[in-house]
Amino acid sequence: MGRSGHNPEREAGSPTFSPSAELPPLSPDDLGVLRRLGARWQVGEAVRTLPVDPQAGEIRSSGVGAAGRPAMLFVRDGAGQLTVTPTAERQDTAEGRAVGGLRRLLLGRPLTSESILRERMPKFIALPVLASDLLSSVAYGPEAMLVVLVLAGSGALGLSLPIAAALVVLMIAVGTSYRQTVYAYPHGAGSYLVASDSLGPRAGLAAAAGLTLDYVLTVSVSVSAGVAAITSALPSLAPYSVPFALAVIGVLLTGNLRGIRVAGNVFAAPTYLFLAAVLGLIAAGFVRAAAGGFAVVAPPPIPAAEGLSLLVVLRAFASGATSMTGIEAVSNAVPVFRPTEWRNARTVLTWMVGILIVLFAGLTLLIHFNGLVPRADQTLLSQLARLTFPTGPWYAIIQVATALVLLLAANTAFNDLPRLLYFMARDGYVPRRFLHLGDRLALSNGLIALAVAAAVILVAFGGRTHSLIPLYAVGVFLAFTLSQIGMVNHWRHHRAPGWRRRASINGVGAALSAVVLVTAAVTKFTAGAWVVVLAVPLLIFMFGRVRRHYDHVQDALGLHPATGTDRRLAPAEEEPPAVVPQQVRHLFLVPVARLNQAALRTLAYVGSLGRPALALHVSPERGEADRFRTQWATWGDHIPLETILSPHRVIIQPLAAYASALRLSHPDLTLTVVVPDVVVDHPWQRLLHYRTEQRLRRALRRHPGIVVTSMPTHLAR
Amino acid sequence: MGRSGHNPEREAGSPTFSPSAELPPLSPDDLGVLRRLGARWQVGEAVRTLPVDPQAGEIRSSGVGAAGRPAMLFVRDGAGQLTVTPTAERQDTAEGRAVGGLRRLLLGRPLTSESILRERMPKFIALPVLASDLLSSVAYGPEAMLVVLVLAGSGALGLSLPIAAALVVLMIAVGTSYRQTVYAYPHGAGSYLVASDSLGPRAGLAAAAGLTLDYVLTVSVSVSAGVAAITSALPSLAPYSVPFALAVIGVLLTGNLRGIRVAGNVFAAPTYLFLAAVLGLIAAGFVRAAAGGFAVVAPPPIPAAEGLSLLVVLRAFASGATSMTGIEAVSNAVPVFRPTEWRNARTVLTWMVGILIVLFAGLTLLIHFNGLVPRADQTLLSQLARLTFPTGPWYAIIQVATALVLLLAANTAFNDLPRLLYFMARDGYVPRRFLHLGDRLALSNGLIALAVAAAVILVAFGGRTHSLIPLYAVGVFLAFTLSQIGMVNHWRHHRAPGWRRRASINGVGAALSAVVLVTAAVTKFTAGAWVVVLAVPLLIFMFGRVRRHYDHVQDALGLHPATGTDRRLAPAEEEPPAVVPQQVRHLFLVPVARLNQAALRTLAYVGSLGRPALALHVSPERGEADRFRTQWATWGDHIPLETILSPHRVIIQPLAAYASALRLSHPDLTLTVVVPDVVVDHPWQRLLHYRTEQRLRRALRRHPGIVVTSMPTHLAR
Repeated sequence: MGRSGHNPEREAGSPTFSPSAELPPLSPDDLGVLRRLGARWQVGEAVRTLPVDPQAGEIRSSGVGAAGRPAMLFVRDGAGQLTVTPTAERQDTAEGRAVGGLRRLLLGRPLTSESILRERMPKFIALPVLASDLLSSVAYGPEAMLVVLVLAGSGALGLSLPIAAALVVLMIAVGTSYRQTVYAYPHGAGSYLVASDSLGPRAGLAAAAGLTLDYVLTVSVSVSAGVAAITSALPSLAPYSVPFALAVIGVLLTGNLRGIRVAGNVFAAPTYLFLAAVLGLIAAGFVRAAAGGFAVVAPPPIPAAEGLSLLVVLRAFASGATSMTGIEAVSNAVPVFRPTEWRNARTVLTWMVGILIVLFAGLTLLIHFNGLVPRADQTLLSQLARLTFPTGPWYAIIQVATALVLLLAANTAFNDLPRLLYFMARDGYVPRRFLHLGDRLALSNGLIALAVAAAVILVAFGGRTHSLIPLYAVGVFLAFTLSQIGMVNHWRHHRAPGWRRRASINGVGAALSAVVLVTAAVTKFTAGAWVVVLAVPLLIFMFGRVRRHYDHVQDALGLHPATGTDRRLAPAEEEPPAVVPQQVRHLFLVPVARLNQAALRTLAYVGSLGRPALALHVSPERGEADRFRTQWATWGDHIPLETILSPHRVIIQPLAAYASALRLSHPDLTLTVVVPDVVVDHPWQRLLHYRTEQRLRRALRRHPGIVVTSMPTHLAR
Repeated sequence: MGRSGHNPEREAGSPTFSPSAELPPLSPDDLGVLRRLGARWQVGEAVRTLPVDPQAGEIRSSGVGAAGRPAMLFVRDGAGQLTVTPTAERQDTAEGRAVGGLRRLLLGRPLTSESILRERMPKFIALPVLASDLLSSVAYGPEAMLVVLVLAGSGALGLSLPIAAALVVLMIAVGTSYRQTVYAYPHGAGSYLVASDSLGPRAGLAAAAGLTLDYVLTVSVSVSAGVAAITSALPSLAPYSVPFALAVIGVLLTGNLRGIRVAGNVFAAPTYLFLAAVLGLIAAGFVRAAAGGFAVVAPPPIPAAEGLSLLVVLRAFASGATSMTGIEAVSNAVPVFRPTEWRNARTVLTWMVGILIVLFAGLTLLIHFNGLVPRADQTLLSQLARLTFPTGPWYAIIQVATALVLLLAANTAFNDLPRLLYFMARDGYVPRRFLHLGDRLALSNGLIALAVAAAVILVAFGGRTHSLIPLYAVGVFLAFTLSQIGMVNHWRHHRAPGWRRRASINGVGAALSAVVLVTAAVTKFTAGAWVVVLAVPLLIFMFGRVRRHYDHVQDALGLHPATGTDRRLAPAEEEPPAVVPQQVRHLFLVPVARLNQAALRTLAYVGSLGRPALALHVSPERGEADRFRTQWATWGDHIPLETILSPHRVIIQPLAAYASALRLSHPDLTLTVVVPDVVVDHPWQRLLHYRTEQRLRRALRRHPGIVVTSMPTHLAR
């Protein structure tokens, strides 16, 4: 068995998904405070005397369901536990039913929390789902390398073999490193968790920022490239490429919202098709090369645009390294494997890297043997396929499979980014709603956020792949580097048997990744990498601000101040104030504009609570104030009335000022402002009312100790 | 003295503006119901025992004001009446003070309701303010007539004299008719009130719809024409004509929001300048014509595009009638005159019509004498001015004055539409917020609505005057016709001495107006009048829907059902239900997600009220539900707890379904849902919270008998 992460907090919360992650348990300290506060609670028995039977066996709606009787809303089991039925999950309106029906059609029936364990992938499904990003990279990786080398003339193309060899070493080093990560973090841990654990939170956030950008760009780039492949084959679709790409993102989103197993089934076949097609191409190419005695065809002479320098070699290396994007997918996704997860994940990772090396090395060699050079009108893969299969359906199959696998590469990001956001949300660096498991057990909010961000970037760049490519890969190699430095620290910290060997493997990977990172950031800076270089610190800043807010909330709301940050450790503040009923002193305020049924119902509601109450009337003129007091006396003057003359006819602000001044001069009081509110049938009718309730609520929102209630009166239909 | 309108309801409410119009008095029937309901009210003395002194002499804020002590918010006078100070009228935040400062800078200091009588105009100010629309029409009216006649060849231009004579008759007829309206409705009544009174509400609404469209179009057309005149003089400004026009609308809006007296001062001078310039032009032109023995110069020969037919004559008549738009301004605006209002108004109206006839007839005659014909590159007024004043500054003065007066013509609409909307709001046909007098005693909401509508139309038509002109004049002649038919009915109904003469004057005016209306609608239908022909019934429909909603509210909220419409006259329903405290049975529901300080404060608040309470916890998993119940027991189980298992992790809908099902099965209960709510410092932080309170409020809004309260917890700073 591998060892898990070593931060005590992180060990307490499991790194697998839990539907209860949004509701973490209380600490023993918290429970102690809770017990002490509860002991001071004094309240009459009236509070516990319910006018309803809380143990009713089932709760039905008023409407008539399908079986001719009211629809069941909740059922109670033998243990007394009430459970929601699907009827109570949606609004009981025609609109609510229509939305519910559409959801079910697109996403399938909701899955219960108990189904979570069954939503796992066998290895033969996990491989294509997680590998599409990595393997599709070979469609452009070797070409990206040669495009740089050819700048130094066709004579420099021979350098592709040593650079490719270095890249294969890099692939083996990074792949081995991630094998070790899967082993060290058997519950799944991507670069974020590894870097956080071993290098501290800021390194983790840097890795997370890099990965976040890279996932979003993976979707934008892969979808636009895949759509471009399709529109190249069918040029009549070209004007619709942006809407088409948005539709593809929509399909990917829908598929992933349905849940990961379904997503796997849908997406496995095309990856296998691509794999078979490219392996067939390589096999046929080598047979053909062997028939020619492995003779190397000389490339066509191309003049050098610049001299051959170390910079050119490094840029070629960095560009070729885009073949490796997606290699981290498995280590992030360990929890989606069937048990034993880490073992299955490691097997799949090994296969993926092995296949990548075969494809990358095979294609690079064949390109070299055949003397192919990058051309503007045709990809190298396409040139090679045409040369190897001049006739027959093979060329078309390879092109179609390439287009499909590029579209599916985007799916890896849909698997990984929501998972990353989940872990970050648990640590409080992104909104906690990314913890929420949707009704199909998918991390719906993360999926939707990714789809929206990718769609915005795609539209902003007009769906042009070449504009997006320079932004790509900086983020992912930042994460690789931090993750592998983190693994070095991890081994040095634990000093388990063989730690030196492991640490040195990770060290080599880290060094090579760092070279790629720096090379990519420097050589592509003006071409667009500056966006990423700026965005990473910005994201880190935002993560920090979110965390600071959650810490602040924890300070303010936590039962035990010390569980938050350590700002308020004074013992006097250990027991929070005013959380027992006998401390609450009430005053109810009722703003009344005119004496109609809504006002009288509100006054009756307040009167029935038997607590001190004061009615307020804002009057534009003295005459109106006098008239209102006369009406009040006619009614019987049952509640004290204060009329406020507002000579400039302002209504909301004086009410708010009165309430807040009252509260500030009597800080022991809890003021409850009860506003009569007319509930209209149609939204347009809101224009016909003053919306006093909403405006007063907004004006009083920033004042503590003031509760705002609206007493709704519904218009009879 | 003239007689006032004869609808008893309208006589009860004065047709002048009242700051209390939003708060109408109760009827004797209402007071009776109020007395009977009050007599049944039973409530303990605790409600009347206030924990604060409600008779405190003054109320101060907590902050430190300018004098080094807390700012005064309210003062109480000897009679015990509390009055708002300016400090309590604005939000006590840096933002609130900045907005308040900007308002004061633009609009001046707020005016108290007592200042309302002082905001009147003397005649010499009222004349230019109300006449700019009418008099500026002569800049395009004669030309509009000749443009049609010239279609039948230059020989047909001679018909301009008899058509102009007919238009002068029409002006005299309509002017005399409105003199009679001012006399009959001394408190001010435009076509809407006259048509409503004498022909019934639907005729009044038709007149109102026509006028509403016409006022909005007056602003759009006049501003775009005025800006076009300026940009013709300074062509470099042409690309900015739409923003420039929007800025002009903004200036007009600001000026009018400051209040009517200031508006008059600002706008009087240019109208007098225009008047002087055009009168000077006419005088000089006649001197010049007299010097030539009044010889008629033959117009240049122009071939006929179509035969001279009755249709051409009618179209010329209808187009020339645009010279009369704005004639109704005085009758609408009687209340802005100084006392005795109706007498001053009638004097100004007579002057206005007299000046109009002089300008219109004078310009038409001079154009005829000089044989001028419409040209594409220059207006007729400009041609005449050039001919009459070949040298000197007069030509430039006339053009500048024309441009200015066109911009100011828009101001008439700013005077009249808010007033029309006020009267309509009092009758319930438009939102009641049009009754509200702003802090400068202007009808701010009507002014803003007009500015927004005119700006939208101006932008939608790209600021092109010629696209807007065909929409114009149909609405105003609809109002003229209805108003004058109404006056005929008015005289026939009252049969005062001389009623036959008066009725026949109005009858002639009505017939002539109807001819213009039908001609304009038919001959300009395809050119754009169809918009108005469709919009008038649409507006009438909307007015009816608004009125129906207010009637519905009156039915539902009125103390005495019979004061609304007569739908619910059953005696059993005379006393509305559940408006006394002893009938209210409470159950408080407290949704609790986790036990933190916000939840405990909410529970303490509910517990302190001493009414039955039930806490609800929605759990995604059975294990979490068990854990929460254990925490609850640790706390002391002071309030009954119901845990609801939501296997699909939906939270809001089950809570709403539970509350509404409980209420439906116990209709005698008043449910109060008290939701713990965290109030954040910055809006962006809302993204970090679930906003349960807002979502639950929205889900429960349509369910009667459920009060939703949020118990705010503010984050300590």
